Amino acid sequence: MKTLILTAEDLRRIALHVGLDALMDEAIASLTAAFESYDATSITIPARQGFVYTRPALGLLEWMPCMSNGTRATIKVVGYHPENARTRQLPTILSTVSAYDVHTGHLSCLMDGTFLTALRTGAASAVASRVMAATDSEIVGLVGGGAQAVTQLHALARVLPIRRVLVYDVDPGVLDSFPARAAGVAGGSRIEPASLEEVVRSADVICTATSVGVGQGPVFDGTEPRPWAHFNAVGSDFHGKVEIPLWLLKRSFVCPDFREQALREGECQQLAPEEVGPSLYEVLQRREEFGALRERLTVFDSTGWALEDQVTMELLMAHARALGVGSRVAIETVSPEVLNPYHFVAAPEPAAAEAPRPALASS
Amino acid sequence: MKTLILTAEDLRRIALHVGLDALMDEAIASLTAAFESYDATSITIPARQGFVYTRPALGLLEWMPCMSNGTRATIKVVGYHPENARTRQLPTILSTVSAYDVHTGHLSCLMDGTFLTALRTGAASAVASRVMAATDSEIVGLVGGGAQAVTQLHALARVLPIRRVLVYDVDPGVLDSFPARAAGVAGGSRIEPASLEEVVRSADVICTATSVGVGQGPVFDGTEPRPWAHFNAVGSDFHGKVEIPLWLLKRSFVCPDFREQALREGECQQLAPEEVGPSLYEVLQRREEFGALRERLTVFDSTGWALEDQVTMELLMAHARALGVGSRVAIETVSPEVLNPYHFVAAPEPAAAEAPRPALASS
Repeated sequence: MKTLILTAEDLRRIALHVGLDALMDEAIASLTAAFESYDATSITIPARQGFVYTRPALGLLEWMPCMSNGTRATIKVVGYHPENARTRQLPTILSTVSAYDVHTGHLSCLMDGTFLTALRTGAASAVASRVMAATDSEIVGLVGGGAQAVTQLHALARVLPIRRVLVYDVDPGVLDSFPARAAGVAGGSRIEPASLEEVVRSADVICTATSVGVGQGPVFDGTEPRPWAHFNAVGSDFHGKVEIPLWLLKRSFVCPDFREQALREGECQQLAPEEVGPSLYEVLQRREEFGALRERLTVFDSTGWALEDQVTMELLMAHARALGVGSRVAIETVSPEVLNPYHFVAAPEPAAAEAPRPALASS
Repeated sequence: MKTLILTAEDLRRIALHVGLDALMDEAIASLTAAFESYDATSITIPARQGFVYTRPALGLLEWMPCMSNGTRATIKVVGYHPENARTRQLPTILSTVSAYDVHTGHLSCLMDGTFLTALRTGAASAVASRVMAATDSEIVGLVGGGAQAVTQLHALARVLPIRRVLVYDVDPGVLDSFPARAAGVAGGSRIEPASLEEVVRSADVICTATSVGVGQGPVFDGTEPRPWAHFNAVGSDFHGKVEIPLWLLKRSFVCPDFREQALREGECQQLAPEEVGPSLYEVLQRREEFGALRERLTVFDSTGWALEDQVTMELLMAHARALGVGSRVAIETVSPEVLNPYHFVAAPEPAAAEAPRPALASS
């Protein structure tokens, strides 16, 4: 009974083999199917919890469990340490996801969570944009041109006829490097740096994916978007962190990925519960009621939902199994001698002291 | 930046090398020190949460996070699947523990949790018994002779002058095999099967470690223990599961490992909050007030506390580092190209399709 370990390098091999476009298409299809069949009685997703701290560094370590009753249990653990990049040349976010066999409790898989998170966050915006954005959306606006912007653009380019991409970032270096980072996944669209005002005013679909500080939002204000603009608000995932101005939320149909969480951590923090629209799964399950959304202002409040992680993990595990990628390690005690916690010590005491010691590495 | 993986086999090597007695002594000393210095403002332990289910098998999967502020964060995940033993020849409990670097969020260690749990549960009873049992306790009674009974006896034999061990189990096979399983760790004491009544009536220290069903407890009743008897109630860890009769709790000083959890899951479920005594760390921190406990009926309500896991994990990690045991795997994405989630795909599209694919295993 072994645990499948999928490292970042293993996931790289899967991505190279399957292709990024195919993987993103599969992620979008898998999330769509999961949202369409979501039912609160068959999936249990406790509110995510975590440790928030300022010593030894500013940090957040949170766990996101998800149980598809009777079939799958996963827990994603996400560390958010904003000083990582500057002080250690490490990603701000480090993450792993674990899957458990619900027959036995066995840890069946442990996987790097970074690629999975990027993939599912992009895919979720594509799912939302496909039902809320104008079908002929040609201009994508990106407020914030960091890592998330790349997967946002990639996902949107898979579902909308994007021709132009307007990018704004407060950091000129990030702005400069964006076209090269996104070139391969922009669906052939033209990528142009733009002013914040231009991005918000001109785009059909706008993704906000910034690292604005708590209490420092919103990230734009005073600019009138197109009447049919659809926003994917990706960056807000923390109490006090918001990107979209309140007046815009008040005029928009606001659709959270998961209502309870969005009211606590997302743009919906700014709203009263009755001002928040149905969650994305409800819009997908009752599409016929929501056709008019394409013609009005809409905001997808994407806080990151544990079900998205579970579904995307399943997708990557299936590829790993099919391709024979990853390593298998017997981690847990699975002795049939369940009554003897010391079974592995042949002759416990005092003979153990005389028994030859196992070879041990010297370092 | 690698993750240290310590499998059950790695822990076996550590146990063989260090010796079970030395390991148990270290666990007892580490727990004692942790309880003595415990301070609710410097350690954060959220209530454990979990999924409880009946499909596809009766099961509980729970996570137990623990943060020693500024220094250590760990999460133990425990699966409890009572049908494992009968249907799959697997332990009822499968478990892993993860440690995270609080500077960066990095998963620094993943370890099998079974041996750690056995060790710390035994050690906790030793810590409690050392302050609550009569110092000349010679007779240990075991109600339930399964896996936990072995480590309970081992731990007690390290801190008390045990000469006789009376064991009772409802399962004759378990009872028969107990002496052989416990022989090496019983400190030379004589192990005798006994009736339930004899165990409760005669022993100085009694450990209840049974798998009594929810609503089926207590596991004994109507027998008067010695006036100074100390009970370590180990088996109660679930809503509705109790081992000690209410009348005995009412007459005893009841000391939980962790009050909030014990009121929810332990023997303390049977009591009103005001009937529950101070937690073990309080007794240790104010020993001078509690000297008289040795002469009266006492119950340690051991539900299993996340701090115990963290402290014991630290101990085992230190041995692993010193002995060079375990494997180190680079699991997480740690690219310095933090702005590019697709950095690993050299030339994303369309060139990727033409690039040679990496070799993949055939299975």
